[in-house]
Amino acid sequence: MPRPGPLSLNTATVRERWGLAECADGCSRRGISAISPWRDALADAGGAERAARRIREAGLAVSSLCRGGMFTAADAAGRRAAIKDNRRAIAEAHALRAASLVIVSGGLPPGSRDLEGARDMVRDGLAEILDEARAAGVMLALEPQHPVACADRSVLSTLAQAIDLCDELGWGLGVVMDVWQVWWDPDLARQIARAQGRIAMFQASDWLVPTTDLAPDRGMPGDGVIDIPRLRAMAEAAGYRGPVEIEVLSRRWWSRDPSEVLGVVQERHATAC
Amino acid sequence: MPRPGPLSLNTATVRERWGLAECADGCSRRGISAISPWRDALADAGGAERAARRIREAGLAVSSLCRGGMFTAADAAGRRAAIKDNRRAIAEAHALRAASLVIVSGGLPPGSRDLEGARDMVRDGLAEILDEARAAGVMLALEPQHPVACADRSVLSTLAQAIDLCDELGWGLGVVMDVWQVWWDPDLARQIARAQGRIAMFQASDWLVPTTDLAPDRGMPGDGVIDIPRLRAMAEAAGYRGPVEIEVLSRRWWSRDPSEVLGVVQERHATAC
Repeated sequence: MPRPGPLSLNTATVRERWGLAECADGCSRRGISAISPWRDALADAGGAERAARRIREAGLAVSSLCRGGMFTAADAAGRRAAIKDNRRAIAEAHALRAASLVIVSGGLPPGSRDLEGARDMVRDGLAEILDEARAAGVMLALEPQHPVACADRSVLSTLAQAIDLCDELGWGLGVVMDVWQVWWDPDLARQIARAQGRIAMFQASDWLVPTTDLAPDRGMPGDGVIDIPRLRAMAEAAGYRGPVEIEVLSRRWWSRDPSEVLGVVQERHATAC
Repeated sequence: MPRPGPLSLNTATVRERWGLAECADGCSRRGISAISPWRDALADAGGAERAARRIREAGLAVSSLCRGGMFTAADAAGRRAAIKDNRRAIAEAHALRAASLVIVSGGLPPGSRDLEGARDMVRDGLAEILDEARAAGVMLALEPQHPVACADRSVLSTLAQAIDLCDELGWGLGVVMDVWQVWWDPDLARQIARAQGRIAMFQASDWLVPTTDLAPDRGMPGDGVIDIPRLRAMAEAAGYRGPVEIEVLSRRWWSRDPSEVLGVVQERHATAC
């Protein structure tokens, strides 16, 4: 198995203790070449322009900005607010020169059981912001999330669905392949091959056994049951040439010293991805 | 939306307080016409023959027996033990005249990351017991489980996979459509239509928002986000004529008086399924 591509640190991995400036310095110190910030970290750092300058000064590329989307809402006002927020996210991604803006679709609106209707809202929301993203040179990277998040966070559940949306809406869209979200999918190999040239980001964390919490209990690559090198090789066979972005949402890791965490991230990037 | 078919009580719904005899009496008293016992309940009731007699005396049909399967194991001895246990399960289902034996595939063997290998073990295990099941007149009802259970309990994750196995292995197999397990699936409508005539059981519980635990936090039909009547109508359009089996694995409901729970089950069967 060839060595993985460059490493990108998703800042959520150390979010409880480090702000954006500390993340940028920490990556720079350790020779990590790319970073993927969350939007709240930009806000804390004084806005996207200042954050962009800080990241540039540290010599880092921005592999993606997390996140836009959340298109589903109970009423038209809520959907309009989501569009407005996505416009801000596109402007921020543009300011950062981020390779892509990660899109998390949103779950069922409160009180709703209309899953198809929610999926329609996602498609309509994407269609509404796509021209603006194209004009800003920001790729919208659709992230299918694990079906466990379908009600709360993401009615976009499979790579097949995400690629269908790319096919339907045209250029300017790609997909995020986060192994924690998709590893279980019996149709995965076929869909990765089908994604050819459209994988915007490869994200790595691991599925722990047992998984004791529904969201923030992800594992560091190598600590769980996902065959990450195999999935990465499949992504690369489908044309992916970008970094391996490590994003570990975990109370366990958040409680540890971020410098140490970065060391583990680097080691696992080399040995378990 | 037409009224749902007859109700069957899955005994796990009241398993912390009622044994098989009490379940049978409770159903009989309330005019519930079918029951789906778990195998541990048979053992506690003195074995399958005695349990069968008890259920017959109460005037109930057995809609399914839960469960066989668990074919995945780290070594050949473990896989042989699973086959042996499935043979006992087939004999028990035969003794009960159960309409089907529910098959839960098993998760990744301990220490393994080989998901495809585990899926092969499931196919091989089914192939090995299928003739015996056919001879006993016991349909093997494959239950795809929610992807959240992929590592621990079920590498069979989608209806598509289950129907593929039916296609590959031939007659004597059917699928369980448990709405809690499959409601999120973007390919669901197509796969239900494809199942035509092969849905062996329709099981109902509900997905709660928030879901706070990974296994025993299911909702009573009507308390969550699944459009159960719509899914039932789809199953019936695909030829399903059996009962609606209500199976609610929930610490919340287990702590309540089983007689009351049965009353709620009946009401929700009429109003929310």
